[in-house]
Amino acid sequence: MKRVYLDNNATTMVDPQAYELMLPYFCEKYGNPNSLHDFGSETHPALRKAMDQLYAGIGADDMDDIIVTSCATESNNWVLKGIYFDKIVTGEKDHIITTSVEHPAIGATCSFLESLGVRITKLDVNSEGLINPDDLRNAIDDKTALVSIMWANNETGAIFPIKELVQIAHERGVLFHTDGVQAVGKIKVDVKDAGVDFMSFSAHKFHGPKGIGGLFIKNSQKLTSLLHGGEHMGGRRSGTLNVPYIVAMGEALEIANKFIDFENIHVKRLRDKLEDALLEIPDVTVVGKREHRVPNTILASIKGVEGEAMLWDLNKAGIAASTGSACASETLESNPIMEAIGADKELAHTALRLSLSRFNTEEEIDYAIEHIKKATQRLRAISSTFAYAPQWHKSGL
Amino acid sequence: MKRVYLDNNATTMVDPQAYELMLPYFCEKYGNPNSLHDFGSETHPALRKAMDQLYAGIGADDMDDIIVTSCATESNNWVLKGIYFDKIVTGEKDHIITTSVEHPAIGATCSFLESLGVRITKLDVNSEGLINPDDLRNAIDDKTALVSIMWANNETGAIFPIKELVQIAHERGVLFHTDGVQAVGKIKVDVKDAGVDFMSFSAHKFHGPKGIGGLFIKNSQKLTSLLHGGEHMGGRRSGTLNVPYIVAMGEALEIANKFIDFENIHVKRLRDKLEDALLEIPDVTVVGKREHRVPNTILASIKGVEGEAMLWDLNKAGIAASTGSACASETLESNPIMEAIGADKELAHTALRLSLSRFNTEEEIDYAIEHIKKATQRLRAISSTFAYAPQWHKSGL
Repeated sequence: MKRVYLDNNATTMVDPQAYELMLPYFCEKYGNPNSLHDFGSETHPALRKAMDQLYAGIGADDMDDIIVTSCATESNNWVLKGIYFDKIVTGEKDHIITTSVEHPAIGATCSFLESLGVRITKLDVNSEGLINPDDLRNAIDDKTALVSIMWANNETGAIFPIKELVQIAHERGVLFHTDGVQAVGKIKVDVKDAGVDFMSFSAHKFHGPKGIGGLFIKNSQKLTSLLHGGEHMGGRRSGTLNVPYIVAMGEALEIANKFIDFENIHVKRLRDKLEDALLEIPDVTVVGKREHRVPNTILASIKGVEGEAMLWDLNKAGIAASTGSACASETLESNPIMEAIGADKELAHTALRLSLSRFNTEEEIDYAIEHIKKATQRLRAISSTFAYAPQWHKSGL
Repeated sequence: MKRVYLDNNATTMVDPQAYELMLPYFCEKYGNPNSLHDFGSETHPALRKAMDQLYAGIGADDMDDIIVTSCATESNNWVLKGIYFDKIVTGEKDHIITTSVEHPAIGATCSFLESLGVRITKLDVNSEGLINPDDLRNAIDDKTALVSIMWANNETGAIFPIKELVQIAHERGVLFHTDGVQAVGKIKVDVKDAGVDFMSFSAHKFHGPKGIGGLFIKNSQKLTSLLHGGEHMGGRRSGTLNVPYIVAMGEALEIANKFIDFENIHVKRLRDKLEDALLEIPDVTVVGKREHRVPNTILASIKGVEGEAMLWDLNKAGIAASTGSACASETLESNPIMEAIGADKELAHTALRLSLSRFNTEEEIDYAIEHIKKATQRLRAISSTFAYAPQWHKSGL
């Protein structure tokens, strides 16, 4: 059975080199790095190397902190709740600005904070899935504590103009956090150049393991901890260090960055080929201009074809795709991002997200094109919820 | 070079069988379990098995929740902060009771909550490291939201009478949380029999990987999430599932429980042999009666011998031990547990914790005995901070 994995925005295969590197830290070099003996200290060179890889990988410097967390969800919760305790509980501020297309780790956390009395402003996006920077400018007031805007969207792949947005926030003295999960490893991410105060990232989106991520903190600035406890990570994030995964995350990031050009030339070429083929099908739309998107992502809508039905057909052919974020897939609701970008309800039910990686081959893409066309034909033929469209008949799709 | 690992309360070697079982989930079966395709769903049988192993391993039933977290530190933070939002922010309650010998993940979190206005009562322990149940009874008042008392202490190995303590809390309608980290896998832990409402546990203390743990929640009762976000773990703890580690944790717990008798007979025999040898040295004391301790732990004080100097000598012989919790070792302060049990400052600086596992051999224990005696002799001979004691001279130790 052929297996074609086109769901890399949900999670990725661990890079084999990163995998190999972490293996000795389970049953051989298993000491606690905080211990005062060789079993502990023999892990230090690998940890140091991994941390160096992380700092270099996002352009941080020694004045900054990169704190390892268990995932970007933790990093996102940490920033929002840390700011809540630092600036909002104190009465100094009362307001957080975000967008309507953030990952649930931001969206749901904001809803929680809203229930505690925090004012939350969610900036709307246009049909490309991007915000208008003027909307951010207008939303900031004297009580704004934080702006949190993702670097790239997990569904559409839309890249936000982070540097410009940071400048708008900083002009008003407001801290800026970005959820960098879908940008890191796909496009060049330089936290210094962008000027962000905080950035979340997650290893399993750049071919590291699931269950490890990090938070960049500019100039090691104050942020109340989310996990209090032992003196790990300089006292900022407690919990015994997950040595193997830290090692793998560092390596995976270094490798991903080495492949950035490959990603933006070869992966993009395959993505564009797939997208071109999709757009040949009548009544197919793709969200956002290609030049405003990360190079691996397509969010398409195939009129008359339920997203889940499409997934089912593709899955039978061994192809993994998505109707949107796997993080929200338990709810079986229509794609909220499609709704946010102003697509009508019908479109929101016909979302198909295809997300590539450097491990995809041209042959796989050809195979996927063949099966997406086949599935479209079959599903439109039996579609009861949508009207018959003559052009589908004529094109056979 | 010989390597003898006697620091299993800090962390453990991953069980080779648990290790093997998780390996396919990095580069082969790497799908996101929440995805609607075979790459996702092919992880489900292993996840289901692992969750079954966890439920069986602590005696939970289908009405309960076991939520996977990134570590016991997260679980501990979750319970305390969840209760804070559920019962204290609301004005219903204002008080949490704990002990003076909890892990920093409880201690530091309580200090944080105290800074937010929560009343914290820390129950004192006796010279054995145990609390007086009457002290708990007397500490509870109408505004008490939670009692949080560890099942077994990480430093002394002292086992708290959890069932009795739970009854005292429940008589007054107060919820009970236990940090079960040092009990699970070492002694029989049955959450139903004990009656606890919440229990934290950590895989890397029972030969699972570092960076994964869990929280038992009786009857799936309400507890505000610590990590908001996607709909993972039934919406209770967001973040993409760490499939390999969940698989390894389930297996490690099942194996640990199979070895419980072995632990309480053979590991205990080796521990007792080591302890007997230590007690043959003049002016050595061990905290707590053996029958009140987990079977693998010794917290000794060797008068005239700085704990860190002892570690150094042992480390040169390839033996890993500890002066106390690795989680606090960055601070280089005297052992706070030793202070809590009323030991004087001198004793608090001479702590030596030895913690065994089922992987230790008799030969290793003999080797450790030889080197602890040798180090004691050397260090007492050069001790400048402590007075000459004739009995050391006579015994040669």
